[in-house]
Amino acid sequence: MEKESDITESGPRTVRDLGEFALIERMNAGRSSAGGVELGPGDDAAVVAAPAGRYVVSTDMLVQDRHFRLDWSRPEEIGAKAIAQNAADVVAMGAAPSAFVVALGCPAETPVTFVDGLVDGMWAEARRAGASIAGGDVVRSPQLVISVTAFGDPRGRAVLRSGARDGDIVAVAGRLGWSAAGMAALSAGDDGEPFADVIAAHRVPRPPYSAVLELPDATAITAMTDVSDGLLADLSHIAESSGVAVDIDSAAVADPALSPVAAALHADPLGWVLTGGEDHAFAATFAAGTAAPPGWRTIGRVCAGAGVFVDGARWPGALGWESFEGGE
Amino acid sequence: MEKESDITESGPRTVRDLGEFALIERMNAGRSSAGGVELGPGDDAAVVAAPAGRYVVSTDMLVQDRHFRLDWSRPEEIGAKAIAQNAADVVAMGAAPSAFVVALGCPAETPVTFVDGLVDGMWAEARRAGASIAGGDVVRSPQLVISVTAFGDPRGRAVLRSGARDGDIVAVAGRLGWSAAGMAALSAGDDGEPFADVIAAHRVPRPPYSAVLELPDATAITAMTDVSDGLLADLSHIAESSGVAVDIDSAAVADPALSPVAAALHADPLGWVLTGGEDHAFAATFAAGTAAPPGWRTIGRVCAGAGVFVDGARWPGALGWESFEGGE
Repeated sequence: MEKESDITESGPRTVRDLGEFALIERMNAGRSSAGGVELGPGDDAAVVAAPAGRYVVSTDMLVQDRHFRLDWSRPEEIGAKAIAQNAADVVAMGAAPSAFVVALGCPAETPVTFVDGLVDGMWAEARRAGASIAGGDVVRSPQLVISVTAFGDPRGRAVLRSGARDGDIVAVAGRLGWSAAGMAALSAGDDGEPFADVIAAHRVPRPPYSAVLELPDATAITAMTDVSDGLLADLSHIAESSGVAVDIDSAAVADPALSPVAAALHADPLGWVLTGGEDHAFAATFAAGTAAPPGWRTIGRVCAGAGVFVDGARWPGALGWESFEGGE
Repeated sequence: MEKESDITESGPRTVRDLGEFALIERMNAGRSSAGGVELGPGDDAAVVAAPAGRYVVSTDMLVQDRHFRLDWSRPEEIGAKAIAQNAADVVAMGAAPSAFVVALGCPAETPVTFVDGLVDGMWAEARRAGASIAGGDVVRSPQLVISVTAFGDPRGRAVLRSGARDGDIVAVAGRLGWSAAGMAALSAGDDGEPFADVIAAHRVPRPPYSAVLELPDATAITAMTDVSDGLLADLSHIAESSGVAVDIDSAAVADPALSPVAAALHADPLGWVLTGGEDHAFAATFAAGTAAPPGWRTIGRVCAGAGVFVDGARWPGALGWESFEGGE
């Protein structure tokens, strides 16, 4: 979408040069809403269909240098990540994504082509999730802030975190530890070939939406969450909500693809798999006696008690990400 | 909600001291969702009822020092303002607010009692709008950023900006220019008695939700918007969307209550009324031949043509607020 006029005598054309209303027009140009969006951008509010008479809603905010870095990710990747992590929350309720709204804060000096990339990435991931972007807001902010709200249609009942029962199996769809491995590589300044796949996974998570949405028998799922803070942290929420304990089998969860990356970085790949955030895999419990469906692998079991265990023992460190820890 | 333990040896207890999950628990403690929210905070997503089979959605982001100042407003006022401006967008579609989700970015050093105040103000305004808060997200950010998404039930058809027709009357419900007058007083360092009412209006807008939601005959409204950027700017959106012109009668729109404030500040009160933002009054057009309903006052008319006029002439300045203008 870059145009000759996007380069001015004083450098790239900025959102200040363009102005709020022309920017919004540019962000929406050529985009067409999918089925669920009855009224898209351009009025005080959008109108979205809710064929089930109810809808699922989740919201997440991403802040520059806290959730993404401009020297590590292209704008398309940042936009895709913002949509993916919200879509994953909706799918983790067993709902099909229908629409997103996006509030964007950015400095006045942001090049308009940067915003083009961000919006392209958002739309690409929204389409991958089967949905579209229904509207938004653009304001001025000292750094980039992206706040996405995602909507979905529950298909039958919503799948909660509270339904796990003693004897259920624990299974996962999607990759674990890849995002943490990618961040470790980038932090170490290693962005060479052996790290390409994990770095790509860190830049844009790929939640396996279809593993949930195409389940042959969704009623076998007793509880589900997406893995955003770390497998152990997120499973601890299921354990607490359900009043049960969860025991993970470290051999079942290990990912051989991470071994060479971990060796090169002198890191423990099991730590990435168990406590690394942002992969947005899905972790679920299935009724006792069932097998993990296609696309899922069994990694543990639900037992009586409380808390999360690995091979029967407590994990001796933090279970995952905490928003207010770490330096500036 | 302040507790003895909110003061520590090193000063007020902060969100870093409390941690993300305890903070979220504290934000939700003692809050109970209203009818429309089927599943509130605590899972991957909330579930909200949509009895009409569709819902209205709007999102707005507020950034510290751009949309509010900590030395001008208490946290309760900032929270109420964030909800009010989003609720006004939903009501401007002719929809009844049902739920809000809130994403909050704040520094790790933010006192937990500040967050208490913010959340109290949000809930108070959500209740005033007849709705509740269904969920949210809390992340770390260099300054306060509040992103609210509001939902509503359309009652009958959604009222768009595009329905104004030549001959319609233009009417307003709510105050105009008060927020701009209050900001002018605060900017001048005048926060004394004569300015108390306009300063209060600047700190917390009071959209007259009931003037819309209790209309005896909603079908007489042909187009509607909330006044967020300035009356002329917002009416220009109606004019453009509807393919008509709008002419405002300056005598009808003038507010005598602003005269002493304007005199004390050597300002033009008509400028505040016509181009001041953030009052979140409602501006609407009603079918030709109807009278302004109770709670509304006629301020002009719709004519053939394009653009917005005051007493038949173009307004010689900016029509309202623009997000990317102004200094840092």
